[in-house]
Amino acid sequence: MTRFALTLEFDGAPFMGLQRQSHGPSVQQSVEDAAHAITGEDVIMHAAGRTDSGVHALGMRAHIEIAKPFDAFRLMEALNARMRPDPVAVTACEVVPDDWHARFSCIGRSYIYRIANRRAPLTLELGKAWQVSRPLDEGAMHRAAQALVGRHDFTTFRSVHCQAQSPLKTLDRLDVRREGDMVLIEAEARSFLHHQVRSMVGCLALVGMGRWDESEVGKALAAKDRQALGLNAPPDGLYFVRAIYPEA
Amino acid sequence: MTRFALTLEFDGAPFMGLQRQSHGPSVQQSVEDAAHAITGEDVIMHAAGRTDSGVHALGMRAHIEIAKPFDAFRLMEALNARMRPDPVAVTACEVVPDDWHARFSCIGRSYIYRIANRRAPLTLELGKAWQVSRPLDEGAMHRAAQALVGRHDFTTFRSVHCQAQSPLKTLDRLDVRREGDMVLIEAEARSFLHHQVRSMVGCLALVGMGRWDESEVGKALAAKDRQALGLNAPPDGLYFVRAIYPEA
Repeated sequence: MTRFALTLEFDGAPFMGLQRQSHGPSVQQSVEDAAHAITGEDVIMHAAGRTDSGVHALGMRAHIEIAKPFDAFRLMEALNARMRPDPVAVTACEVVPDDWHARFSCIGRSYIYRIANRRAPLTLELGKAWQVSRPLDEGAMHRAAQALVGRHDFTTFRSVHCQAQSPLKTLDRLDVRREGDMVLIEAEARSFLHHQVRSMVGCLALVGMGRWDESEVGKALAAKDRQALGLNAPPDGLYFVRAIYPEA
Repeated sequence: MTRFALTLEFDGAPFMGLQRQSHGPSVQQSVEDAAHAITGEDVIMHAAGRTDSGVHALGMRAHIEIAKPFDAFRLMEALNARMRPDPVAVTACEVVPDDWHARFSCIGRSYIYRIANRRAPLTLELGKAWQVSRPLDEGAMHRAAQALVGRHDFTTFRSVHCQAQSPLKTLDRLDVRREGDMVLIEAEARSFLHHQVRSMVGCLALVGMGRWDESEVGKALAAKDRQALGLNAPPDGLYFVRAIYPEA
């Protein structure tokens, strides 16, 4: 068996999420079905993260194992040809050691969240950003975000469906900046709880609108209570950007 | 009657083009139907340009006339509410003098064309860029493009359906640059022939791939013959960026 690391880009809109689901299409199914069609083998994909329905990826990492001899470039081309017209693409593919695991070897994950801060409905960005009509103060959002950086109990920012054993996570970075009418929020951590980024973004948006005082984000964190959550941002604006691994 | 100038943003994919068509949806119909629903009046929209099916706009300009008293901001909000879920948005609206004409007063138009220069199929950019797998030399494309700048007979780069009286046009700017795997082509002129930008981009892409020598673009221009055209680029990558008017 040869283990291949895949870099995946996908539009999350038509999928029920990254992980295989019995009730609808998933990124995992798209990749596994393509690999099966090419090799005749039952292939299982493991990914660095489990994104929700509607969440996109620019550089998700995953791995698959294949018995049939395959060159990495040819495998990438064959997967891409087979996955059409599903909006999933393999943008890089390489052979990795058998102990390299897309999920368990991963030591860092980063996301970006895009808020289109404008009154007009979205057209070209529809499904690719969260439209917020009220003017956002990105400076206040950035200052408020710093209360979340560090090692904390993120129970407030955790989905009730989260399967993680502990709500303790270390958030390495949470930066907010503006580019024109787009407010961009970048988050980095070793790992995140389910809905953590969207929950943090939702509360920061309340600060940006002036509905929450800057200090209320830290208070919501300290409450360790899902009821203290202000708002869970929609999936449309969320992109899994990058998974980081130790140098080989 | 009050004349309103509209700035329009739209995703061209679901439309037969900007101009009203008997055989399918158009941007013009979307705006006119919304204006009729709001005012009860038969409203006709005039636009700075006539984009084809699949061509997008970031800042198309247009005007409409309405008898019912309306504040510009309220009109914009009402149009946007009515046009949902069509991917057209009014991003600005202002009252203009009765002799201001979106098409005839316009003294400059600019387009951008986006080429995704990568092997992997498009996912998030699907329908929003032209995917070209072969590596493009953007420097060669930029140099070749300069042969087209200035006043020329653009017959080679003109659709057989073009309704302009003369094939003589002055191209003010045609710049090619790369941002990561995106090759961007910016074109500016007082006005363009039908398919002119897509035809120029198609030939520049041939240069970028090395299938045409840099000098062949100038030769194709000099031929003044549609048969000399190398390639017409698809609409997906084309965006109407901006219409320019004399200072009031």
